[in-house]
Amino acid sequence: MKESISNIKVFSSSIAIIGWHDGGAGQIHSWFQKSGEYHVACFVNPIDEPLNIDPSNIDRDASQFSYPEREKFKDLPLINKSDWYSELSKLGINKIIITIPDLRERYNQINKAKRYGFELVNAIHESALIMDDALLGENLMIYPRVYVGYCAEVRTGVALNTGVQLDHHNVIRECAAIDPGVVFAGNVTVGRFTQVHTGVVVKNRIRIGDDSVIGAGSVIINDVSDRVTVVGVPGRIIKHH
Amino acid sequence: MKESISNIKVFSSSIAIIGWHDGGAGQIHSWFQKSGEYHVACFVNPIDEPLNIDPSNIDRDASQFSYPEREKFKDLPLINKSDWYSELSKLGINKIIITIPDLRERYNQINKAKRYGFELVNAIHESALIMDDALLGENLMIYPRVYVGYCAEVRTGVALNTGVQLDHHNVIRECAAIDPGVVFAGNVTVGRFTQVHTGVVVKNRIRIGDDSVIGAGSVIINDVSDRVTVVGVPGRIIKHH
Amino acid sequence: MKESISNIKVFSSSIAIIGWHDGGAGQIHSWFQKSGEYHVACFVNPIDEPLNIDPSNIDRDASQFSYPEREKFKDLPLINKSDWYSELSKLGINKIIITIPDLRERYNQINKAKRYGFELVNAIHESALIMDDALLGENLMIYPRVYVGYCAEVRTGVALNTGVQLDHHNVIRECAAIDPGVVFAGNVTVGRFTQVHTGVVVKNRIRIGDDSVIGAGSVIINDVSDRVTVVGVPGRIIKHH
Repeated sequence: MKESISNIKVFSSSIAIIGWHDGGAGQIHSWFQKSGEYHVACFVNPIDEPLNIDPSNIDRDASQFSYPEREKFKDLPLINKSDWYSELSKLGINKIIITIPDLRERYNQINKAKRYGFELVNAIHESALIMDDALLGENLMIYPRVYVGYCAEVRTGVALNTGVQLDHHNVIRECAAIDPGVVFAGNVTVGRFTQVHTGVVVKNRIRIGDDSVIGAGSVIINDVSDRVTVVGVPGRIIKHH
Repeated sequence: MKESISNIKVFSSSIAIIGWHDGGAGQIHSWFQKSGEYHVACFVNPIDEPLNIDPSNIDRDASQFSYPEREKFKDLPLINKSDWYSELSKLGINKIIITIPDLRERYNQINKAKRYGFELVNAIHESALIMDDALLGENLMIYPRVYVGYCAEVRTGVALNTGVQLDHHNVIRECAAIDPGVVFAGNVTVGRFTQVHTGVVVKNRIRIGDDSVIGAGSVIINDVSDRVTVVGVPGRIIKHH
Repeated sequence: MKESISNIKVFSSSIAIIGWHDGGAGQIHSWFQKSGEYHVACFVNPIDEPLNIDPSNIDRDASQFSYPEREKFKDLPLINKSDWYSELSKLGINKIIITIPDLRERYNQINKAKRYGFELVNAIHESALIMDDALLGENLMIYPRVYVGYCAEVRTGVALNTGVQLDHHNVIRECAAIDPGVVFAGNVTVGRFTQVHTGVVVKNRIRIGDDSVIGAGSVIINDVSDRVTVVGVPGRIIKHH
């Protein structure tokens, strides 16, 4: 570990990506690599145990899939440490983006990183279209072809996956996760830690609460409260959390 | 009122936006302001009473929301007059776009404006993609990321909201309104004054009649007659108008 | 026939489009014409009988619709011949794209064309967004606004219609046809000759088999086997083939 860390080259544009999943961290790495906006110095697995993934146990059809090794991901060092704050500080890396899939854990790590003085960077694919009047937080993951409409607000820690369409005056609160192809009409609000799954459609002026889950392909035409799972057309509550 | 009107600066590129809703007129104003294609001289509320909106009564989560004041909207003069035709002529404004949400009213005002010799302007966001072979009418509102396919036809007064996808040989008749994220396959026709709400999917070769309403998230696999409301997957008639 | 063929001008960039439907072959012709990437020399109807289409029998609302005449389509020669391989060789045309709607027939013709040494060309609209890490086959039809994600794989003969969104690590096998507005989340696989109709939504890590049909607007949250038709939200099998 020492050795791989001592090999990390650090520039003023260097960033550490906290997380190691190929769909999220891996993609974001490829955008930064292409745009040259940031130099990705390393990935971080925020746990003290190295990962022990056996690719032969993972069942994927795609022929190109990057798996983390014990101390390496996508040919870059992978730091396995819950106290990655100290580790990155020692290395002189001040810029980070936290891509951890668990939304509350992402929130906690973001807040801790802020207290430690890290700069939280946004990963916004160049094909995303963000209206000038929109308000953006920090540590955003904004995937290709996303649209953020007139006067929309996207708070810190939110992930807007491929092709998500937020219309005018949408408000997406802290660490909500919006999956690919979701369409929100005007004046929609989504609460903190809420997951809106692939292809959901939400009509205008709907409020969706905190800590809720909207199942893939659901159509939401009524407000959704906190801590429920909603599925179907139109969406109906199937679970209280 | 006289005073605010006398303050209106008019150029050859000046346009009046008829309507004052922030989701429609407000957005279109922001596009023109950014592109510089037209100079927005004023807004018009086509009623003789000034609006009397109390923002504290309006329940919106977004922190940036523009409300019309009695004679002002988005820091521009707001003319309250049913006979706005004369008013604009006096000011020397000949270019307009009518964004009134009521579709028959929009149609009537468009026809009256034509008789008075006004030039009806299209508001087309720069991110819209319109195939060369498409046929476009006047007074169109074409929002960001809209796609108008090969040999498609969009008639006067139509609104195509964010991300609407019209495929090849679609025909959208006068003053139909297509909400965000709607997907039409090839050879779809939509009649006059019909509203197709957010996220609707229509398979190829479907004809939808005049004065109908298709509810958000519906999937249309059979023709829809005039004057009905259709909802669901697959769409079923729930009301005759 | 001889005469019209003898009139074909052939350049090094010349291509023949096998197929004559205005929604497919006609659209692709318009892209090549605009981009100038290829010179379309002729269309081919791969049957020995000339087409005998009476436009007055075809019920379309669009005012611009190109119908094939006996030996002409879109003002270009139309060759009616099952042995078009020899015909094109004689003319010196080596580049082709096969747009035949029947998916097994497309597959057979592609394989025969390869054996005869033809170069199978991809028709990719300039507005499509294809990530650098994606793997592409031959004879692809990739319509406007398509997105092909990080490490996705699109095999030979596939059609991705307007606005189709393939997310990271998707695998679309030979001659599958994905209709407009379909959204696939990450790690989705679609088998050979499978048709996914307009506006379908598929959640992540789903496998769809060979020779299946997914009805318009369906939402797929479970794997789909070979040779079935699935419709609805969530998708249910309604037919075994």
